[in-house]
Amino acid sequence: MVFAGIDLGGTSIKAGIVNEAGKILAEASAPTNPKRPYQEMTRDFITCVMDAMNKSDTKMEQLASIGIGIPGIADQATGKVVFCPNIGWRDIPLKEELQKYIDRPVYIDNDATVAGLAESYAGVSRNCRSSVFLTLGTGVGGGIIIDGKPWSGAHGIGSELGHMTLVANGIPCNCGNNGCMERYCSATAVIQMAKQVCMTYPESRMVYLAGGSPDNLNARCVFDAAKEGDKPALMVFEKYVDYLAMAINNVSAFLDPEMIVLGGGVSHAGIFLLDAVRARLPRYLLYKSLPSARVELAQLGNDAGIIGAAFLGMANAPRE
Amino acid sequence: MVFAGIDLGGTSIKAGIVNEAGKILAEASAPTNPKRPYQEMTRDFITCVMDAMNKSDTKMEQLASIGIGIPGIADQATGKVVFCPNIGWRDIPLKEELQKYIDRPVYIDNDATVAGLAESYAGVSRNCRSSVFLTLGTGVGGGIIIDGKPWSGAHGIGSELGHMTLVANGIPCNCGNNGCMERYCSATAVIQMAKQVCMTYPESRMVYLAGGSPDNLNARCVFDAAKEGDKPALMVFEKYVDYLAMAINNVSAFLDPEMIVLGGGVSHAGIFLLDAVRARLPRYLLYKSLPSARVELAQLGNDAGIIGAAFLGMANAPRE
Repeated sequence: MVFAGIDLGGTSIKAGIVNEAGKILAEASAPTNPKRPYQEMTRDFITCVMDAMNKSDTKMEQLASIGIGIPGIADQATGKVVFCPNIGWRDIPLKEELQKYIDRPVYIDNDATVAGLAESYAGVSRNCRSSVFLTLGTGVGGGIIIDGKPWSGAHGIGSELGHMTLVANGIPCNCGNNGCMERYCSATAVIQMAKQVCMTYPESRMVYLAGGSPDNLNARCVFDAAKEGDKPALMVFEKYVDYLAMAINNVSAFLDPEMIVLGGGVSHAGIFLLDAVRARLPRYLLYKSLPSARVELAQLGNDAGIIGAAFLGMANAPRE
Repeated sequence: MVFAGIDLGGTSIKAGIVNEAGKILAEASAPTNPKRPYQEMTRDFITCVMDAMNKSDTKMEQLASIGIGIPGIADQATGKVVFCPNIGWRDIPLKEELQKYIDRPVYIDNDATVAGLAESYAGVSRNCRSSVFLTLGTGVGGGIIIDGKPWSGAHGIGSELGHMTLVANGIPCNCGNNGCMERYCSATAVIQMAKQVCMTYPESRMVYLAGGSPDNLNARCVFDAAKEGDKPALMVFEKYVDYLAMAINNVSAFLDPEMIVLGGGVSHAGIFLLDAVRARLPRYLLYKSLPSARVELAQLGNDAGIIGAAFLGMANAPRE
């Protein structure tokens, strides 16, 4: 059996056929064009899946299920997309619409959850029964795996780790609250911290790597300059690592998973970031002498979207 | 079948025989005397269980299991108490020791987890597949129930909700960190806030209810004065409710359980507190128009310790 996985993003629809080992056999994609009717977009989902099936010589009877990772919230019971702000969707009967074309089980879940699921089946956390995935990108997303299955909550609104309060009455967040974790742990946070430091240290290597203008700073400039030993960049880096260690400790104190996986753009800083986070974490752990979650870097990169969506079919066998 | 439940506290050992409906058929207790050898204390566990069995006319063949709630951390796999600071225990083979006397399955878990389990079997969250229990007492403890089973984490150090950072670099906590949730949401936090307010408003009704001295303030004085409309007490109450709503939102954003149950001393403020928390919570919820966790008061009070410990036997059937 093989599984179809669809990774729905704001710019593109990516579909793939994935085997039981988590290998993508073939892929196809189309532009999202979010403003059109959902029925039209759904037809493109189907076209992409069929295209990938053809490329991989998959017959319809081999296809076990279709899974979709969305940048939003789904209702598992009804197969509706409840809310998907980037696509402009609200209460869209996506499962029903897809099943007009292909009569297979359809599973829909949040994209960060799906990426976490991919890592837990075919990536770094593949031998873990429980893991928490953190996407450190423009924002911070979360994916929770418990007993090998994704957990998006009783109402589908869980694993929004980026919007947990880390600093009560702290920096205002787009969500309307203050001090959300993503205001301190995202790539956006790195850039904000760096811009502030560069006002005092305009000669920082960060500014040079940003082409001479702090306006062009990105997280990579900061991490690269820090790796080179640039002091202002190291100030930013250490502050960022400190907040990230606090956030990771919060995950351990709450759920204590076997592993916490760092993904998303910031994680491209690689072992340099990982070593620093691991070194800082014990400062915050409640039981410093007891075993706790291993912290690791994600392995699957962008493929996690398709692989995890496909694996929703395997993972969504009913819980006990 | 019936289940034995033992509630181990710093002052007393309480044991009970509990039926499948969650009714305590009989109880027995003994002083803890934490300084003696664990073997001696274990004999008192057994004596109390036997005593409660006698009182309830329970025959040995009717006893399904023995469960123990401890103010610490247990290793489910080995049946060892890993760490129990109030009792002075570290790596105590409690299951092995108990099974020298009674050859029945032994389950050990954290006391807040056990209380949450009791509520989820026989209390306010009894129809919920997932719930989070918060004990708001001297500190703040947490109990997580997922798919009807307690979740203490992959290493047994989870559900320490009181020690999640809510205010980065905030008030110092006994644990060595700063800004832990329990520094803002416990009864101790209420008292601290009240003492500070009473320095400016020594004529507050709170001080009167504390017998005229702010040194004797407790959480009840604050809530009672607030109920009577005392303005300084209302200032404290509103600040406390605000932090508690933030913490409850963090639980929803992370795990999104079906229900969040408030227990412990502070919850005796009852519907007055519950109404205020429910009114404040939408300010923080990420998806204000979508369904989210119901917030309720615990129902079982002190009995939750025995009932939940007993139910560990029912709940610990292996997960999927």
